[in-house]
Amino acid sequence: MESPAGGAPAPRALPYYVALSQLLGLTAVATTGAWLGLYRGGIAWESALQFNVHPLCMVIGLIFLQGDALLVYRVFRNETKRTSKVLHGALHVLALVLALVGLVAVFDYHGRQRYADLYSLHSWCGLLVCGLYFAQWLLGFGFFLFPGASFSLRSRYRPQHVFCGAAIFLLAVGTALLGLQEALLFKLGAKYRALEPEGVLGGALGLLLAGFGAAVLYILTRAGWRRPPREEEQALSMDFKTLTEGGGPGSQ
Amino acid sequence: MESPAGGAPAPRALPYYVALSQLLGLTAVATTGAWLGLYRGGIAWESALQFNVHPLCMVIGLIFLQGDALLVYRVFRNETKRTSKVLHGALHVLALVLALVGLVAVFDYHGRQRYADLYSLHSWCGLLVCGLYFAQWLLGFGFFLFPGASFSLRSRYRPQHVFCGAAIFLLAVGTALLGLQEALLFKLGAKYRALEPEGVLGGALGLLLAGFGAAVLYILTRAGWRRPPREEEQALSMDFKTLTEGGGPGSQ
Repeated sequence: MESPAGGAPAPRALPYYVALSQLLGLTAVATTGAWLGLYRGGIAWESALQFNVHPLCMVIGLIFLQGDALLVYRVFRNETKRTSKVLHGALHVLALVLALVGLVAVFDYHGRQRYADLYSLHSWCGLLVCGLYFAQWLLGFGFFLFPGASFSLRSRYRPQHVFCGAAIFLLAVGTALLGLQEALLFKLGAKYRALEPEGVLGGALGLLLAGFGAAVLYILTRAGWRRPPREEEQALSMDFKTLTEGGGPGSQ
Repeated sequence: MESPAGGAPAPRALPYYVALSQLLGLTAVATTGAWLGLYRGGIAWESALQFNVHPLCMVIGLIFLQGDALLVYRVFRNETKRTSKVLHGALHVLALVLALVGLVAVFDYHGRQRYADLYSLHSWCGLLVCGLYFAQWLLGFGFFLFPGASFSLRSRYRPQHVFCGAAIFLLAVGTALLGLQEALLFKLGAKYRALEPEGVLGGALGLLLAGFGAAVLYILTRAGWRRPPREEEQALSMDFKTLTEGGGPGSQ
């Protein structure tokens, strides 16, 4: 079960943890929708409801889809590397598009209402997440999708890519909690202290988001749950290394 | 450098990352002190300033000392396991004591001012951190300091202990950011939007705390930076395993 060697069967506990993560993530998305529908008047682009597009897009894109993109190599462990890579990239494209829509929504709303931008800790962390996410996109694309990068360059960059991906995801979860509490404090004010239904629902949503973050981190960090390289991939990457760098198969 | 085998030299980049983490952590502690001194009237137990004991104790205890406790096995890699264990435990004792003082301060202050308790997302996350930290303490003590646990039980629990420790630490960082933004919003109100100096200092403190969390997580998750077991420890644990479970040295 713990062996990372090629052709190993999927770890027995992995599907249960993946199911738990999806349950937490989907419940968080549904709770965000319920919160916006029940207490914030729903969603629209051409009105004051435009603000509500922001939390919905960010929770679906930068939390749920980004988290699932990180899990692709653990869940689809028996697919070819190419398939996993395409799925990983596709989920990140969807996450990026939703994040951009969410960003435009909040800046557009602030502009129309003549509110200040970028003053709160939530907005600073959000800006950091977006900047890092964009840089991670460019580097990931350059190293892993663009055919020019050498084998050893890819191997050396891979652990950094994995760490930065997890760190950006966790910062996105923290930023969502900050934004959620900010929205509750702005609207409820002193009523927040009276355990209003909206405050309780918001708190539950915060815990769901934190739980999804923890579940994704657990699946990512279990050493035995990494995708084992398939035998033909090992042979292929040796050939690739020999071709691009002149190293022999024994010189890894 | 990447070899986890016994007697390996310390990875060359590790000291720089440890220095960076300490710089970020100590600057965060100093900035918390500066914020409370410059904008919140300082610290006292028997007045309305009692509240200020809460953020200071939590940042020193649950963020800085807890983070450093996690790094002990990476930094003191050439000490005996017993020494590292004692230092890891001692830092966690200090963190626990400070967290308890910080908790008493905020509940006492709320009681005197007749404020409600435990309504915000910050307080819910904080309660979760304290509960998980206490459970982690009990389990860690039971498995690793109490002499009764068997070798295989310890080996099986160790990855869970490491993951839960990191997750609790990261949740503590997130909770600190939530508390910081709550404190800024409560006091500054609409002035928060005008980029008041206190808001900017608070935002910088939030980024420092997040940076410390990221640095600790990076050092913890680099596979090649784990403490390699010393040769005599490997021999000893084999003897221990043989004695307690009857397994031969070859049956690991």
